Amino acid sequence: MARSIELSIKSVNSGTGPFGAVIVKNNQIISEGFNTVTLNNDPTSHAEIVAIRKACEELSNFSLEGCDLYTTCEPCPMCLSAIYWARISKIYYANTRSDAKKIDFSDAMIYEELNKTIKDRKIPMHQMMRDEALKAFDLWEKKVDKVKY
Amino acid sequence: MARSIELSIKSVNSGTGPFGAVIVKNNQIISEGFNTVTLNNDPTSHAEIVAIRKACEELSNFSLEGCDLYTTCEPCPMCLSAIYWARISKIYYANTRSDAKKIDFSDAMIYEELNKTIKDRKIPMHQMMRDEALKAFDLWEKKVDKVKY
Repeated sequence: MARSIELSIKSVNSGTGPFGAVIVKNNQIISEGFNTVTLNNDPTSHAEIVAIRKACEELSNFSLEGCDLYTTCEPCPMCLSAIYWARISKIYYANTRSDAKKIDFSDAMIYEELNKTIKDRKIPMHQMMRDEALKAFDLWEKKVDKVKY
Repeated sequence: MARSIELSIKSVNSGTGPFGAVIVKNNQIISEGFNTVTLNNDPTSHAEIVAIRKACEELSNFSLEGCDLYTTCEPCPMCLSAIYWARISKIYYANTRSDAKKIDFSDAMIYEELNKTIKDRKIPMHQMMRDEALKAFDLWEKKVDKVKY
């Protein structure tokens, strides 16, 4: 966590959000990340996502089972979902959601939106061309040599 | 959407999940993505995330306000959160969450986990070193030339 905090300070000094993350496997740091949203024009490059992508690259594996994440702040819904997809085993965090809110990084709206029905969300969502799109799902289902994940 | 569906078929043929996405601004496609989770060992590279990252790179902007997303499937919580962070204006989707579940791509567990309290989640979450981590938040708050996002 001490290293994650160093990264979060590096992040502020680089001109982007105060968040750092580190991924550890067998007591060794295998990847590090800090927030680069405004630096790299990438709204998905939160510290945790950066660290997950690097750890997977390092291990040549899309699963981080057996890895622990040390993040300087309770993860937002995007990062928490990514943590589940990546199958991380344990999360250590320092600051809370409400600490983040105090400095204007609030993910409360996103948590609320995720719980709404499609028609009630702030971003309009319209369904179209389902029959055509189902073809790819059928192809996947019939594929013999697929890598499940 | 027709192009997104083409991409989802390309995705299956490349050996990875059947999902495609396209981002449109002013009636022009500005980015395309398909799922490359197993192909690139990146659990965050869902079609929507890939398309968002490319669109931001294309526009040199971390905001996609005024852009529409065409995705072949209702977005998972990671992608839906990323869509909110990216400030996409409208979402068009084809297959539903329950269509995806039928071919073993279920995000129901993640939706449930997001709604749980920290202590009830499947992935254990432990808090530590908050006082030290708050220092980066203070630094950010006092920073004069910060780019808010």
